[in-house]
Amino acid sequence: MKILILNSGSSSIKYQLMKMPANEVICSGMIDRIGLESSNVTYKTKDISFEEILPIATHKIGLQKVASLLLNEETGVIKSTSEINAVGHRVVHGGSEFTKTVKIDEKVKAKIKQLFELAPLHNPANLEGINVAEEIFDTAEQIAVFDTAFHQTIPVVAHKYAIPDKLLTENKIRMYGFHGTSHKYVSENAIKYLKKHTDTKGKNIITIHLGNGCSMTAVKDGKSIDHTMGFAPANGLIMGTRCGDIDQSIIFYMKNTLNYSLDEINIILQKQSGMLGLTGFSDLRDIEAHAENGNKECQLALAMNAYRIKKYIGSYTAVLNGLDAIVFTAGIGENSSYMRKLVCTDMEYFGIELDDEKNQIRSKSNREINTETSKTKILVIPTDEEFEIANQVHHLLKN
Amino acid sequence: MKILILNSGSSSIKYQLMKMPANEVICSGMIDRIGLESSNVTYKTKDISFEEILPIATHKIGLQKVASLLLNEETGVIKSTSEINAVGHRVVHGGSEFTKTVKIDEKVKAKIKQLFELAPLHNPANLEGINVAEEIFDTAEQIAVFDTAFHQTIPVVAHKYAIPDKLLTENKIRMYGFHGTSHKYVSENAIKYLKKHTDTKGKNIITIHLGNGCSMTAVKDGKSIDHTMGFAPANGLIMGTRCGDIDQSIIFYMKNTLNYSLDEINIILQKQSGMLGLTGFSDLRDIEAHAENGNKECQLALAMNAYRIKKYIGSYTAVLNGLDAIVFTAGIGENSSYMRKLVCTDMEYFGIELDDEKNQIRSKSNREINTETSKTKILVIPTDEEFEIANQVHHLLKN
Repeated sequence: MKILILNSGSSSIKYQLMKMPANEVICSGMIDRIGLESSNVTYKTKDISFEEILPIATHKIGLQKVASLLLNEETGVIKSTSEINAVGHRVVHGGSEFTKTVKIDEKVKAKIKQLFELAPLHNPANLEGINVAEEIFDTAEQIAVFDTAFHQTIPVVAHKYAIPDKLLTENKIRMYGFHGTSHKYVSENAIKYLKKHTDTKGKNIITIHLGNGCSMTAVKDGKSIDHTMGFAPANGLIMGTRCGDIDQSIIFYMKNTLNYSLDEINIILQKQSGMLGLTGFSDLRDIEAHAENGNKECQLALAMNAYRIKKYIGSYTAVLNGLDAIVFTAGIGENSSYMRKLVCTDMEYFGIELDDEKNQIRSKSNREINTETSKTKILVIPTDEEFEIANQVHHLLKN
Repeated sequence: MKILILNSGSSSIKYQLMKMPANEVICSGMIDRIGLESSNVTYKTKDISFEEILPIATHKIGLQKVASLLLNEETGVIKSTSEINAVGHRVVHGGSEFTKTVKIDEKVKAKIKQLFELAPLHNPANLEGINVAEEIFDTAEQIAVFDTAFHQTIPVVAHKYAIPDKLLTENKIRMYGFHGTSHKYVSENAIKYLKKHTDTKGKNIITIHLGNGCSMTAVKDGKSIDHTMGFAPANGLIMGTRCGDIDQSIIFYMKNTLNYSLDEINIILQKQSGMLGLTGFSDLRDIEAHAENGNKECQLALAMNAYRIKKYIGSYTAVLNGLDAIVFTAGIGENSSYMRKLVCTDMEYFGIELDDEKNQIRSKSNREINTETSKTKILVIPTDEEFEIANQVHHLLKN
């Protein structure tokens, strides 16, 4: 079965064609800067890789370009769009409506549209991608995979805010959680790893997704029961440019006393805060290099980042009432031995003991980086959201 | 030494005259509804207790009334205001300036005034109380005891927010922490109790102050190293009418999508949220009674409240890297066996085992309510902010 995975952003389309269940990537690439004169198009198969600069005015023209790349007589990978059995769409916000992956019909599209106001930057672009894909890949099943779905098992005690009840019942203000596709993939693979290689079954694990966005999930018996991101993907951990948790009073103070506009405050908290706001740099590799050369601001920012992760490890251990493993994933989680070391230092109470040598090894494999005696396992499990989407689409269609 | 303790709020004055170091309360009372036609005045000694309704237009008239009560030939307790050696003023916000109790001079008053914008509801009333007390008790030393002072030991990694640096350096936006007088008093008494009655020295303890306001402090070797309230006394735990932690995105959503004004949002989050917003009741005793009678909203609100306390127990255990004791205090913490039970259930990982019978006993004494085998001690230590203020004033003047 050939499955095309589409991740449509406000000005970009990421695509990957996969053969399932073989888990083989046939080709992948992205179109960036849609709407500008010089959009950037990339295309990669196992034999060939190239990049083009050309104007792509709309998502429709963008997806037509993807189709023409796939169909190209010399460099393409299919003869007809009908070879594609399904298109799996990443949809950011599924609200409380969608607890799992679904086939897209008019009702589903209407619900995705209803959720525009909860995810104004993402859901409109996701729906546009669906509409265009229905035209261009008209023989394929269209399937929606939601970032929020994995977190729909979070109980009300954790997903409700202590604000007047009607803001939940009427206005749907609650914690939704994000990065669900990644947390699901990584937690399932961590549990498989633990069952196969260790003496624990992974009943209580904490997944730590550290990429551009950062979030953590408490996973009990394979199910998400708590998560750091809430109503929007803004709070919780410190991110590249997002502040994560802050005292909400600061917003009122910045507006009423410091005379910022609410729009300015939003931009500051979303785009100028986090590691960028603390250090002037947004790329963690730069920040680590500067920290190693003695830059105090960079050292502090990394320490603050790790401190907050530690606090959530503690929180989630409390709600799990146990801890079998912590799992690092995504760009920073998979690659930054520096950050993993900061997080795992002085955590003996939680049975967390890092093996410094194992922590230094770079690898694309699932691996264990704790000492032999560490009661809690420390795993690195590379995430693969495209595979997870393809896998869910494949499962849905097979059954 | 006779010390008058004053807690001046925006429309009230609480007072207590104490003999130190005997720790004897000579008299106490409060003036409420200052500025209204029918202000309420209470006065209590060990022999007598009465209440008056009369108009008290200003704080000055209020403090003159307090003086006349103290001096009254029949019911009073002093012959001359010169018998009062010192007035200890509770000041809510000491910013980063004040790390301990200080004698008040013009410089101190100027600094308290500079902090008005960080505590617009409290510091102006506190300063007014100081100015009036200087006139009326003009032979007494005037001393300021700050709610924030105990938390000035919180390291930068915990007190800094991940927002642009100049908001801290120029605008002083950081975590300050509150209820410091209570957390200091309770943690010191808990440590004394642990040294005397148990096999632990109380190196790592967590104090849980549950009253009208609620907050928790991680105390390492007697020092505050982290705390749930931040820039203002708004976030952290769920309180009577305050929401505590929420995703800050909700504020932008309520303003931009639901069309609330920012002032309305502030009122909702401060006055209509928390236990009131969740249940319609603000008194915990009512909520517990309804929960016991099967009211689902009340049951959920209590569960949410306890859930958040558990999460902070986990967080603080992580930053302490150990846990000797958790300590309940203030109205709810001292009296609600229901809430203590919810918090301590399913916390075996943290060595927390509640003794159900001991938990039911009502008492005004410091006590231990864990089982014999509980690795972590569970203490109830009644708070006494007035004593703590008097004690600090006495220490300062003695040395």
